[in-house]
Amino acid sequence: MKKSLLALAALTAFAGAASAQSTVTLFGIVDAGIARLSAGGTSKTGMTNSGYNSSRLGFRGVEDLGGGLQAGFWLEGQLSNDDGNAAGMNWQRRSTVSLMGGFGEIRLGRDYTPHFWNTTVYDPFGTNGVGSANTFGMLGAAANVSTAVRSNNAISYFTPNLGGFSAQVMYAFGENVSGGVKTNNYMGFRVGYAAGPISVHAAYGKTEGATDAADHKAMNFGGSFDLGFIKPSLMIAQEKNGAGAKVTAIEPGIMVPLGAGVIRASYARHDVKNSDNDWNKIAVGYLHNLSKRTTVYATYARVGNKGTNARAVANNGLAAPAVTPGGNASGIEFGVRHAF
Amino acid sequence: MKKSLLALAALTAFAGAASAQSTVTLFGIVDAGIARLSAGGTSKTGMTNSGYNSSRLGFRGVEDLGGGLQAGFWLEGQLSNDDGNAAGMNWQRRSTVSLMGGFGEIRLGRDYTPHFWNTTVYDPFGTNGVGSANTFGMLGAAANVSTAVRSNNAISYFTPNLGGFSAQVMYAFGENVSGGVKTNNYMGFRVGYAAGPISVHAAYGKTEGATDAADHKAMNFGGSFDLGFIKPSLMIAQEKNGAGAKVTAIEPGIMVPLGAGVIRASYARHDVKNSDNDWNKIAVGYLHNLSKRTTVYATYARVGNKGTNARAVANNGLAAPAVTPGGNASGIEFGVRHAF
Amino acid sequence: MKKSLLALAALTAFAGAASAQSTVTLFGIVDAGIARLSAGGTSKTGMTNSGYNSSRLGFRGVEDLGGGLQAGFWLEGQLSNDDGNAAGMNWQRRSTVSLMGGFGEIRLGRDYTPHFWNTTVYDPFGTNGVGSANTFGMLGAAANVSTAVRSNNAISYFTPNLGGFSAQVMYAFGENVSGGVKTNNYMGFRVGYAAGPISVHAAYGKTEGATDAADHKAMNFGGSFDLGFIKPSLMIAQEKNGAGAKVTAIEPGIMVPLGAGVIRASYARHDVKNSDNDWNKIAVGYLHNLSKRTTVYATYARVGNKGTNARAVANNGLAAPAVTPGGNASGIEFGVRHAF
Repeated sequence: MKKSLLALAALTAFAGAASAQSTVTLFGIVDAGIARLSAGGTSKTGMTNSGYNSSRLGFRGVEDLGGGLQAGFWLEGQLSNDDGNAAGMNWQRRSTVSLMGGFGEIRLGRDYTPHFWNTTVYDPFGTNGVGSANTFGMLGAAANVSTAVRSNNAISYFTPNLGGFSAQVMYAFGENVSGGVKTNNYMGFRVGYAAGPISVHAAYGKTEGATDAADHKAMNFGGSFDLGFIKPSLMIAQEKNGAGAKVTAIEPGIMVPLGAGVIRASYARHDVKNSDNDWNKIAVGYLHNLSKRTTVYATYARVGNKGTNARAVANNGLAAPAVTPGGNASGIEFGVRHAF
Repeated sequence: MKKSLLALAALTAFAGAASAQSTVTLFGIVDAGIARLSAGGTSKTGMTNSGYNSSRLGFRGVEDLGGGLQAGFWLEGQLSNDDGNAAGMNWQRRSTVSLMGGFGEIRLGRDYTPHFWNTTVYDPFGTNGVGSANTFGMLGAAANVSTAVRSNNAISYFTPNLGGFSAQVMYAFGENVSGGVKTNNYMGFRVGYAAGPISVHAAYGKTEGATDAADHKAMNFGGSFDLGFIKPSLMIAQEKNGAGAKVTAIEPGIMVPLGAGVIRASYARHDVKNSDNDWNKIAVGYLHNLSKRTTVYATYARVGNKGTNARAVANNGLAAPAVTPGGNASGIEFGVRHAF
Repeated sequence: MKKSLLALAALTAFAGAASAQSTVTLFGIVDAGIARLSAGGTSKTGMTNSGYNSSRLGFRGVEDLGGGLQAGFWLEGQLSNDDGNAAGMNWQRRSTVSLMGGFGEIRLGRDYTPHFWNTTVYDPFGTNGVGSANTFGMLGAAANVSTAVRSNNAISYFTPNLGGFSAQVMYAFGENVSGGVKTNNYMGFRVGYAAGPISVHAAYGKTEGATDAADHKAMNFGGSFDLGFIKPSLMIAQEKNGAGAKVTAIEPGIMVPLGAGVIRASYARHDVKNSDNDWNKIAVGYLHNLSKRTTVYATYARVGNKGTNARAVANNGLAAPAVTPGGNASGIEFGVRHAF
């Protein structure tokens, strides 16, 4: 969700060139809520951020270079608005410069990894709030996850939209010394089709670890079919490392428009290979749009753990209480999302 | 002082809805000065920030939702412009999202605590520069002061202006695990009347500490009467904790308009309960407005300590020299405040 | 390079005063590249920032106070766009407030030291990318270099342009306690002439260290002559401390316009006093302007070290491989610079 809310006609210092049409846009989201997270017989109530959409602040712009070529920049950072962004403002959500044209787009900088997108696009709760199935970084700390959502030092190519089909590929530099260990070198791609009611995409990403056993591979597939009165979706995601660890998630979901609102529901099942330490998550929620920019929402979610697994129902800005291994966790959240 | 200097008509990406009138405003203050602080036979001369008004940068906006309802956001952070904001930019002065209407305003996020306001509104020097009596956080490190000026995780309600009367109440979550210690849970309110030349407000705030002895309570009252040629004010503030510590401050002040300028003066007396470790402060200054946005100022202040007390004349951006217990401290400051 | 790309007519909250004409400008640069740095038989390839111009984000504004007087502010911070500005956003490139008029400008805050300017203005590669000779902070960690490029707590005076002649002087407070050691007190000035094809400037800066031996003095001279088809330049810079350490650099350079592009080349020789630990650097590059705001560039540079010296070919965002003392280092870089 990247809505342009303040599109300013740029009065450049370089007047005269007819091709110097350009815009700089200030944009952002402030999303705050109140949540109650329960696990292990205890609970915590407090304020959260980003329960529906990630709170953010950004600047972006496009310059027409003439001849069908464009240059653009994008600086976007996270807001933890419940604590005044105590960790400080940066542009780690995205900081890129691009050259664009009929050939597509070449983009340099910190950006989303291609293999991340399906896990948010085909989850009815995206990657936000208590409801998200969070089917990225599933292997946890044991695996190399510096590229789970985004990567530094990345160069990407995006095809233009070719009759609904499109693809993107990214290479990110680990910036290692030649002859030494190779870590954080990343290669990923995403291909898909989106037109009319149909949207389907598959993606793959590989991140080099210090050893082959530490290599991290993610692959996923998602699809949705918008029938107007109902929009079912399906997402399948898998992560594995070179040491044989593997987690597979499958998440059917549904969105049901209801006047100015939307009902959202999903069920996600996470299977850990050669293990009973699996977990599943069920989430249900309701969005009510006060306008296109301002939405109030309520979500309930519950995680069921097996074996020694101890996944929490988590959120931004409120640390979850400790989960008993094999036990359950739940969360309920109310909030308001305002975009500008 | 929150002046709107760049009010932009927002060209939203959601055109068409007649109710989508909205503005996003960039605003800020850069206030720099040169001060000489003296104490204990030594002195320090250097550059300060925020001597008249707190240096800041912010973005805020309001969206008309129709039906008398509005949504709004406010992101505002501190600037230490003498060192380039070395600590990094955040939005800890205020980061909130609001729903507003005839019923008043509901506001979520990090914001000023209600009990803070009187200590700045009814001090002729606000909470800035060498002149401020700083009648908040008076119990010092011994007390819970995470809420002395602002609080994270806060939900507030503001009444509309009811014929001059208004009230605000805030609850802030300490975000503690159920069944454990309760710290930083905060509740406070402020009520008052402001119309014509009269302004009077009373406020109270309580912050839970880990033990009852660590509970922190602040209460204060302020009033001012604008006679046109002179504006006297009075502020009484008290802070105490559950262990019996208590500090009471009383501060009469005066502001005298003088053409494009204002003379400011105040005397503050701080009494520590069951102790002779009291202190007092006298301050006098002159503001000269070059425009509504740009002001030059000069302030002199002197603190007299008793017993083992060692309060300094402090400022932002210039560390005060060490004060001899029971000794005096003084400071003089010249600066320029520019708002945008 | 500080280009005004979004100049907004400010609709101030203080309408009515005819003198309230003012502008607030959002500006910035996103510059990203890919470089390969080699030294000591190893190499590193990765993404860099600021290869042609320093990546930055800023806000600045000017207010007309009437009577020929103006007030202004400038907040500008660095961007490491290859990693999303992981270190956090600040305004350490410049954060100042100014009063300006026929008398010139008085400026308060963090700003460039006068003695820095020649080292970037008269280097064909400025202070960016693999090509810059970096003739500031040459004495390294042994010397006081907190003022090598900028200084906190600075007050500056700039003369107006007097028929091509101009001067600036800066004093910066070390903010030391009286009677103790004096560190970081800085005084510097720069004088010169720039008109038509000719530009010549000389500068001096002295920074007090804790002892006389730690005092740091920099002096430099630069000139360029723009013949239209070719622009030769010369820069001579010297740094010494009170203990007798001294480095002298001499750097002839050249810029050759070539249609929408520019060829740049320079040779810099650094002599260390009473030592054979000298080094030199050769750099050559090409800029191609896609527009006035968007430029692609390529640069190659090589450092030759003598004795125990081990200077690297460095860049922002990619750590250089270790250089063998007395050995060589080289770097090649391709990038795109987009200003807004």
